[in-house]
Amino acid sequence: MKLNIALLAGDGIGPEVIDQAVKVADAIASKFNHEITWKPALTGAAAIDAVGEPYPDETHEVCANADAVLFGAIGHPRFDNDPSAKVRPEQGLLKMRQKLGLFANVRPTFTFPSLIEKSPLKRERIEGTDLIILRELTGGVYFGERGRKDDNNTAFDTMTYQRFEIERLAKKGFEMAMKRSKRLCCVDKANVLESSRLWRETVQAMAKDYPEVEVSYEFVDAVAMRLVQWPKDYDVMITANLFGDILTDEASVISGSMGLMPSSSVGSKVSLYEPIHGSYPQAAGKDIANPLATVLSAAMLFEDMDLTEEAQAIRDVVNKSLAEGIVTEDLAEGGKAYKTSEVGDWLAKNI
Amino acid sequence: MKLNIALLAGDGIGPEVIDQAVKVADAIASKFNHEITWKPALTGAAAIDAVGEPYPDETHEVCANADAVLFGAIGHPRFDNDPSAKVRPEQGLLKMRQKLGLFANVRPTFTFPSLIEKSPLKRERIEGTDLIILRELTGGVYFGERGRKDDNNTAFDTMTYQRFEIERLAKKGFEMAMKRSKRLCCVDKANVLESSRLWRETVQAMAKDYPEVEVSYEFVDAVAMRLVQWPKDYDVMITANLFGDILTDEASVISGSMGLMPSSSVGSKVSLYEPIHGSYPQAAGKDIANPLATVLSAAMLFEDMDLTEEAQAIRDVVNKSLAEGIVTEDLAEGGKAYKTSEVGDWLAKNI
Ligand SMILES: CC(C)[C@H](C(=O)O)[C@@H](O)C(=O)O
Ligand SMILES: CC(C)[C@H](C(=O)O)[C@@H](O)C(=O)O
Repeated sequence: MKLNIALLAGDGIGPEVIDQAVKVADAIASKFNHEITWKPALTGAAAIDAVGEPYPDETHEVCANADAVLFGAIGHPRFDNDPSAKVRPEQGLLKMRQKLGLFANVRPTFTFPSLIEKSPLKRERIEGTDLIILRELTGGVYFGERGRKDDNNTAFDTMTYQRFEIERLAKKGFEMAMKRSKRLCCVDKANVLESSRLWRETVQAMAKDYPEVEVSYEFVDAVAMRLVQWPKDYDVMITANLFGDILTDEASVISGSMGLMPSSSVGSKVSLYEPIHGSYPQAAGKDIANPLATVLSAAMLFEDMDLTEEAQAIRDVVNKSLAEGIVTEDLAEGGKAYKTSEVGDWLAKNI
Repeated sequence: MKLNIALLAGDGIGPEVIDQAVKVADAIASKFNHEITWKPALTGAAAIDAVGEPYPDETHEVCANADAVLFGAIGHPRFDNDPSAKVRPEQGLLKMRQKLGLFANVRPTFTFPSLIEKSPLKRERIEGTDLIILRELTGGVYFGERGRKDDNNTAFDTMTYQRFEIERLAKKGFEMAMKRSKRLCCVDKANVLESSRLWRETVQAMAKDYPEVEVSYEFVDAVAMRLVQWPKDYDVMITANLFGDILTDEASVISGSMGLMPSSSVGSKVSLYEPIHGSYPQAAGKDIANPLATVLSAAMLFEDMDLTEEAQAIRDVVNKSLAEGIVTEDLAEGGKAYKTSEVGDWLAKNI
C-alpha cells in the first residue's frame, strides 16, 4: 500500500515524539511492504514563528491531500498568560480541526497491567477499565460567535449545536457501541442548556434505530464524579466539544498511563492521529519525553486503514518495551531511563 | 441572638436530612441561648406538585426576609429524560440563585482521617487535601440567552460574563487566599473562550492589589486532570459557573467523604447553606441517607454569623459521631448502620 502521511510535529516535545513514531512506522512499512511518503508541514508556535500563522494554508494543502495526518502537540507557554496575543498556537489547532472537518475525537482509556500502580486511583477501581470517549470536535462553544461588548466590560461565547452535528457524532457512537459492549452514554447538561436538550432529543430519536444498544443519559457534573469513582461503569460515551475537552483529560489520568494514550480525530475525508499529552515545554529538546502515545497513535492510523496486522505489530512491540523496561524516565521507576530516541530505535528494531 | 432561617427541604432525601440539621441547630440554640425561628417553604418538584412552580414567589419572600437559608436538595428523575418538560425543578434552583443574588458558591474539599480509605484515590495522594473551590453562581452560560433556530434544528446557549461579576467573585477568592495559604488559582479556558480571557485579564488586574497572593492560571481541562493527580497542589480556586459545576463535583469524590461535604452560596444580603449531594431519589423516604453534610452546612451557617463556637460545637459532635461509629449505612463498613433520624437524635443529644 502507498501512504501519504502529513507530518505535523508542532511545538515542545512534538518533534521528538513524532520522530520515534516515524521510525516505527517506517519499520512497519519495510516489514509489510508498504510505501510511506512523509509530508512534513508547519503548525503551532513553530508555524507562527516561521510564517506568522499557526495553521498556514500550505499546511492545510498538505493535510487535505494526505491519506492521514500524524500530529505531535502544539502550545507554547509564552502565549498562555498573554490574553492579548492576537495569534495563538491553539487557533491553529482549531482551524485545522474545522478546515479538515475532524468532527469526532476518539479517546480510548484503558489500563496497562504493568502501569496500574502509577494511577492515583486504587487498583480495584481501575483494573480492566476500557472506555472510549467520543468528543464532538468541530462545533459547540469552540466555534460559535464570541466577542466583547459594553466598552470591553462584557465578553460572550456562543455554544451552538445543529442537529446534523449531533447525529454524525452519535452515529459513530452507536456503531462503536455495537462493536463493543452495546452500551452508550450520552453526557450533557440537559437540565440547564438548550443545546444539551437538543443532544438528548437527537440521541433519543436515533436510539430507535439501534434497539440492541442500551443508552443512558448522564449530566456532565455527575460523570466528572463517577469517572473517578467507577470508571469501569463506562463503555462508549458521546459528548459535546467542551465537556469532552474536560472529561477526556480527566479520564486520561485514571489509567495511570497518560503518557501512553493515543487518540484519533476522525473526519469524513482525512483523519488525524495524535498523542493526548500536550507539548510539555519543560521537557522540550531534552530527549526525555515518552514517545509511546505517539507510537500508539500511529497504530490507530494503521488500524483505520484496515491494516490490522500492522497495528497489532506496533501494539505488540510497545508491550514488549514495557515488559522489558525499555522506557523513558517517567516509567523507569528506579530502573534505567532510556532516552526518547533510544526507545524509538529499540521499537523500530524490534518490529 | 435571634435567627430567622428559611427552611427549604426540597426533593428526594432533602426533607430527611434537613430534619436532622434542624434538630442539631435547635440543640445549639438551646445550649448557646439563641432563638431560631424556622420558616419552611416549598421548592423543587415538591413545589411544582403543590403550586406548579419550582421556586414560588412566596418561597422567595420567605428567603429574602430570612437571615439565612438552609436547603436540602432538589431534582426528580421524572424530569430528567423528558427534554420537553416545561417546568423543571432545577429551574427553581437557578431562579433562587439569581433572585437571591447568590453569586459565590463556596465548596470546601477536605479529608476526614477516618474516611480516607473510602476514597477511590490512594491515601498518599489525598491525605491532607484542603481546598476550596469558589464557583461563580449567577452568571455565565447558566443565565445567558438560549433558544432554538432553523426550525428547531439548531440550539444555542450564550456564555456571558461582565467584569463586575468576575471582580466580585475574585475578591472573595483573594480574601480567602489571604486568610489561608495565600495561593489562588484562576481556572478558565482562556485559550479558547473570550469570556475566559476576560476572567484572566480581570484577575490579573486585581492581583496587583494583593501582592502577597501568589496567583496561578490554569486551563479547566488541565485542572480536571491535576485535581485527581495532586489535589494537595490546590488551595483556593476561582472559576466560572459551568466549570465550577463540573470541578466541584469531581473534587467532591476525592476526599472519600462526599456524603459529608457542606457548601454555602453567598449573596450580598442573604446566604444559603446546603449539602453538596443531590436529592438521591432512590433513597428517599427510607431514613437511610447520611445527614452529616447538611449538619455541617448548618455549621457553615453559624460560622458566617460569626458564631464560631457554635459552629465548632457542631463540627466536634460530627467528629465524635464518626469516631464512635454512629453513622448511616454508607459509612457503616460492616458495623451497625444507624438510621438518618437516629444519627440526628444522637448528634442533638450530644451537643
Ligand atoms: C489546546 C486546546 C485549544 C485544545 C482544546 O481545548 O480542544 C486541547 O485542550 C485539546 O483538548 O486538544
Ligand atoms: C441541578 C443543577 C441545575 C445544578 C447546577 O448545575 O448548578 C447542580 O448540578 C448544582 O451544582 O447545584
